[in-house]
Amino acid sequence: MEQSAVTPSTGWGVLHLYYRVDPALPAANRGAAGAAVVAAVESLEADGHQVVVQAILGHKADLGFIALGPDLARLQRFQQELLAAPLVPEWSYVSLTELSEYGATEDDERARLAVEENLAGEELEARLAVWRERITHYREQRLHPRLPAKATCCFYPMSKRRGPGDNWFELSFAERKELMAGHARVGRTYAGRVLQLITGSTGIDDWEWGVTLLADDPVVLKEIVYEMRFDPVSARYAEFGPFFTGLVLPAAEACARVGLGADGRR
Amino acid sequence: MEQSAVTPSTGWGVLHLYYRVDPALPAANRGAAGAAVVAAVESLEADGHQVVVQAILGHKADLGFIALGPDLARLQRFQQELLAAPLVPEWSYVSLTELSEYGATEDDERARLAVEENLAGEELEARLAVWRERITHYREQRLHPRLPAKATCCFYPMSKRRGPGDNWFELSFAERKELMAGHARVGRTYAGRVLQLITGSTGIDDWEWGVTLLADDPVVLKEIVYEMRFDPVSARYAEFGPFFTGLVLPAAEACARVGLGADGRR
Amino acid sequence: MEQSAVTPSTGWGVLHLYYRVDPALPAANRGAAGAAVVAAVESLEADGHQVVVQAILGHKADLGFIALGPDLARLQRFQQELLAAPLVPEWSYVSLTELSEYGATEDDERARLAVEENLAGEELEARLAVWRERITHYREQRLHPRLPAKATCCFYPMSKRRGPGDNWFELSFAERKELMAGHARVGRTYAGRVLQLITGSTGIDDWEWGVTLLADDPVVLKEIVYEMRFDPVSARYAEFGPFFTGLVLPAAEACARVGLGADGRR
Amino acid sequence: MEQSAVTPSTGWGVLHLYYRVDPALPAANRGAAGAAVVAAVESLEADGHQVVVQAILGHKADLGFIALGPDLARLQRFQQELLAAPLVPEWSYVSLTELSEYGATEDDERARLAVEENLAGEELEARLAVWRERITHYREQRLHPRLPAKATCCFYPMSKRRGPGDNWFELSFAERKELMAGHARVGRTYAGRVLQLITGSTGIDDWEWGVTLLADDPVVLKEIVYEMRFDPVSARYAEFGPFFTGLVLPAAEACARVGLGADGRR
Amino acid sequence: MEQSAVTPSTGWGVLHLYYRVDPALPAANRGAAGAAVVAAVESLEADGHQVVVQAILGHKADLGFIALGPDLARLQRFQQELLAAPLVPEWSYVSLTELSEYGATEDDERARLAVEENLAGEELEARLAVWRERITHYREQRLHPRLPAKATCCFYPMSKRRGPGDNWFELSFAERKELMAGHARVGRTYAGRVLQLITGSTGIDDWEWGVTLLADDPVVLKEIVYEMRFDPVSARYAEFGPFFTGLVLPAAEACARVGLGADGRR
Repeated sequence: MEQSAVTPSTGWGVLHLYYRVDPALPAANRGAAGAAVVAAVESLEADGHQVVVQAILGHKADLGFIALGPDLARLQRFQQELLAAPLVPEWSYVSLTELSEYGATEDDERARLAVEENLAGEELEARLAVWRERITHYREQRLHPRLPAKATCCFYPMSKRRGPGDNWFELSFAERKELMAGHARVGRTYAGRVLQLITGSTGIDDWEWGVTLLADDPVVLKEIVYEMRFDPVSARYAEFGPFFTGLVLPAAEACARVGLGADGRR
Repeated sequence: MEQSAVTPSTGWGVLHLYYRVDPALPAANRGAAGAAVVAAVESLEADGHQVVVQAILGHKADLGFIALGPDLARLQRFQQELLAAPLVPEWSYVSLTELSEYGATEDDERARLAVEENLAGEELEARLAVWRERITHYREQRLHPRLPAKATCCFYPMSKRRGPGDNWFELSFAERKELMAGHARVGRTYAGRVLQLITGSTGIDDWEWGVTLLADDPVVLKEIVYEMRFDPVSARYAEFGPFFTGLVLPAAEACARVGLGADGRR
Repeated sequence: MEQSAVTPSTGWGVLHLYYRVDPALPAANRGAAGAAVVAAVESLEADGHQVVVQAILGHKADLGFIALGPDLARLQRFQQELLAAPLVPEWSYVSLTELSEYGATEDDERARLAVEENLAGEELEARLAVWRERITHYREQRLHPRLPAKATCCFYPMSKRRGPGDNWFELSFAERKELMAGHARVGRTYAGRVLQLITGSTGIDDWEWGVTLLADDPVVLKEIVYEMRFDPVSARYAEFGPFFTGLVLPAAEACARVGLGADGRR
Repeated sequence: MEQSAVTPSTGWGVLHLYYRVDPALPAANRGAAGAAVVAAVESLEADGHQVVVQAILGHKADLGFIALGPDLARLQRFQQELLAAPLVPEWSYVSLTELSEYGATEDDERARLAVEENLAGEELEARLAVWRERITHYREQRLHPRLPAKATCCFYPMSKRRGPGDNWFELSFAERKELMAGHARVGRTYAGRVLQLITGSTGIDDWEWGVTLLADDPVVLKEIVYEMRFDPVSARYAEFGPFFTGLVLPAAEACARVGLGADGRR
Repeated sequence: MEQSAVTPSTGWGVLHLYYRVDPALPAANRGAAGAAVVAAVESLEADGHQVVVQAILGHKADLGFIALGPDLARLQRFQQELLAAPLVPEWSYVSLTELSEYGATEDDERARLAVEENLAGEELEARLAVWRERITHYREQRLHPRLPAKATCCFYPMSKRRGPGDNWFELSFAERKELMAGHARVGRTYAGRVLQLITGSTGIDDWEWGVTLLADDPVVLKEIVYEMRFDPVSARYAEFGPFFTGLVLPAAEACARVGLGADGRR
């Protein structure tokens, strides 16, 4: 934590940061730049934050970082350390981890167990206790996620549509909850193959949410987003920002892949 | 005040200014640059204006300044002093403080006290006198605000929609006043947790209003904007520009956090 | 005039030019750059053209110029002289002064005098003669305007909407004339407080018209555009480009305010 | 022709190229740069292509070139020669000359002569022979145009709208042909005053067509585009890209006007 | 393959990469830069990937590369080698080869043979066997294409519309399949004249698909896209990104055409 930490009352701060390597950086300085990047990552992790490093595909950036943790002041220091490495900033996204407001409540689950599974009494209570433990773990993972090591990653920001035809923000909470439940069901069919993290950014960056997907197979990144596009939540109500796709790598390896290796070789 | 001050007939001028530190600025010059920024801020404040300084999160800028006060010529000099520090301009917004045209009038309040609180005679007049004092203070704060010290800040410009489906500017004044009253009620539930300043920019910058939010807890910045998005004023009638979020800091500290500290250390 | 002048058959050419001062321009060269700007302005004025110079508020530019007169070739030379000063171009707008096609005709005025003022015979003719003189002066001011010295200035380009819902270009001439008459009535309530110049750019720049407003009080720039936004011509049919706002100053003073003064001080 | 010419099976290739002069180009190199531009133009013309050179008004570019002819490989060489002059590319448009699919057929004209002019037999055939010659010349001018020397030029790309409200591509051929005939009638009223060239770019650049207008009087550029905007083809179905306006000049004169003259004077 | 190859479970990775040659690259280094580009291409091909190299028309880029093959990590190395050549990245697109979900199934074909061609029994089975072989080849060509040598190439990304009026993602699979069958019929009339490759990018780049067209005659690139624009799939449901058009050449020849030839001549 920084001396004057800025800690959200709920959840963590999240920075998605995308950088270019200055092509004019002399070969003699490239190893040091890579070492500075690795040191910044390790130092942030030592301070109780996480970082996912990527070598980005395409022209939008060379290196991508997903940095998250409890202290926005510490995260701001991290981005300044990357600038000083030096890396050249190309794009970023600022968000906070958050719970979904549409998650099932204990009452929802109790009703479901009673109606769909025909349970009552102790049996129902026992199942509810299991559910409670699972949901506690799930919520903890939403607010304080542990991002797993997967081979590929994509990120994109999104907002819900507020047009005259389709306006998400004019739907009732019940309508939105039902639509989101269907959306989540599609997501769950990808469980184990893709890790999905939704973070909130209304009021703090240009879109309302950030979506981070991690998968070993890049085809899965494409399939989950494509399948969800037919779900009404996306088909009628989603607007998407730019997409960033990269190869997830240890920081030193990512640096080496963009010409910032110890040998300065591009 | 400048020799040839340019003073709005009502309210103050407001500049939201966002800058990058030139990455090529030599280490030897960084301390002086920071000192120049601090001097520009102190000098502007000495001349009867205010400045809120921020270390910005994400790639959009390194430093942000909200500078406001009675003289546009003095504010123009301030932005030139920052350029000379040197800082590199990335974005800005020009606006003027203004009263809301939808604020309750004395007649509104008199009617409310009579109908809702069932008051009359001296009792009503006494309450009205209290209201009058409060509203005078409130209006003074809109036109000549004192921005409080909070840990985080976000800014975004916005316009009201003029589309074929939803057109704010085709609503009657009464309809707009009623809609804005509901909007304000949401805002008041955040009283004490967030300071909100709305400034006007129709005709002088690309959007119609600028919204400045200050809060100690960054979660509150997200929550107030998110909750308001469901209010019809936002859900149907608001178009938003870019969002800038930063950590509010004393000028010298903000400079130090972006590599312009006295020691020149990045 | 240039050797090979390019003169519009009606009206004058108008260039709105916005420039940045190169931050890398050495202090030793700044005085000369300012002198070159002043010389370019004076030389253009000596050649029978006008220039309004502004110190711009916000990041979009440092200096703005509104240059107008009979010769497009001379105006092109002016912009090259500013480049050579050197100034760095940031934005511009190319247009031509023009009469409004919706102005009242002599028949309109004759009918109005007869119906609204109940005049006839010599009395009507006398009033018509006065009107004729006034309208001749007004038209001359539209085609060959003399821009007055005011403290502040804003400029924005605009087009009329051609959407499926609201389509200005599918209205009849009579409908458009009536709408524009209402629009003009709003404008006239600001007479004396703001000078408004509408120039045409369909086919020669990205929007259909340019709007230049000059006023001593910056609040008036905001109020006139805001009030007009409720007029159907704007509410339903206007699309706006970027807005540039500045402080109108003598050329040498404007240069001094952006660090190009005789002493090279920024 | 290049050794490996790439020649369209119908019509010519067309490049609209817009460049800035690097402000850092030393005075000592400016004359040589201008000479290189002139040499590139002359060499392309010697190889059987045409070039229209312009000094551009406003900030979008300094110099514009319309280069057209049978060989895309030769045109690509031309743009590389301009880069090497050196000029700095700002914008471009790639298109091919093409016939209008909506032009009158011989059957159309035969029917028109019979019905509208009440002709038959030899008289009709004689008139049809005249028409045939004229249309052959017109088509040749569309596919292999000779661009005349006029004082001013504007260019803009455009597409036909494909929205839910108005969708050009869902109209029948007959509907489109009738709409285009009305559009062409407006254009013909400007015959002699403006040269209009429509080139096709669907699939090869970002818009569907490029429109090049040449006129001695800049007012005419404005008037033709403005008048056509009320025609349904534009009012309901046209989307416009950026507009570039310039003064048409011999290559050496255009270079001199942008500081690339033989004397290196800016 | 790289040591840690990242291989899609289906299909290949595809990078469309567009670069500018740095105009400041000294003549003495240009031959080496071209040689580095050629070496990067040859090395990628030696590793079992393909590269189509183009000299681009217009200002968007100088050189374009379509690189495809089984290993995303190897493709990322290729783009870094081009950066190190050095080339300056201007634009890119990241996608994966994929089968169309709307392709005819064996049941579709069996039904078609029975109904349309009135076949049954052994005859039908024999024809089905032929079809099966052809479709296997076709699918192989979609997933692991061999891009032929053609003179010209264009690329553009696209998405299907999700607006309130026309929403592709709210159509049933059957509706979409029928629409796509009509679309494919138009495409087949261009068989032999144009090679069309559709690759998928939902979730991994900003649009949903990338379209690569290769043809010897540039007119065919224009005609196929123009004709398809009238097909409902495009007319009502397609949104297009930027278009890149170039001349396909051997790597060394493309380099020579953009001033990176062995002789360093621009």
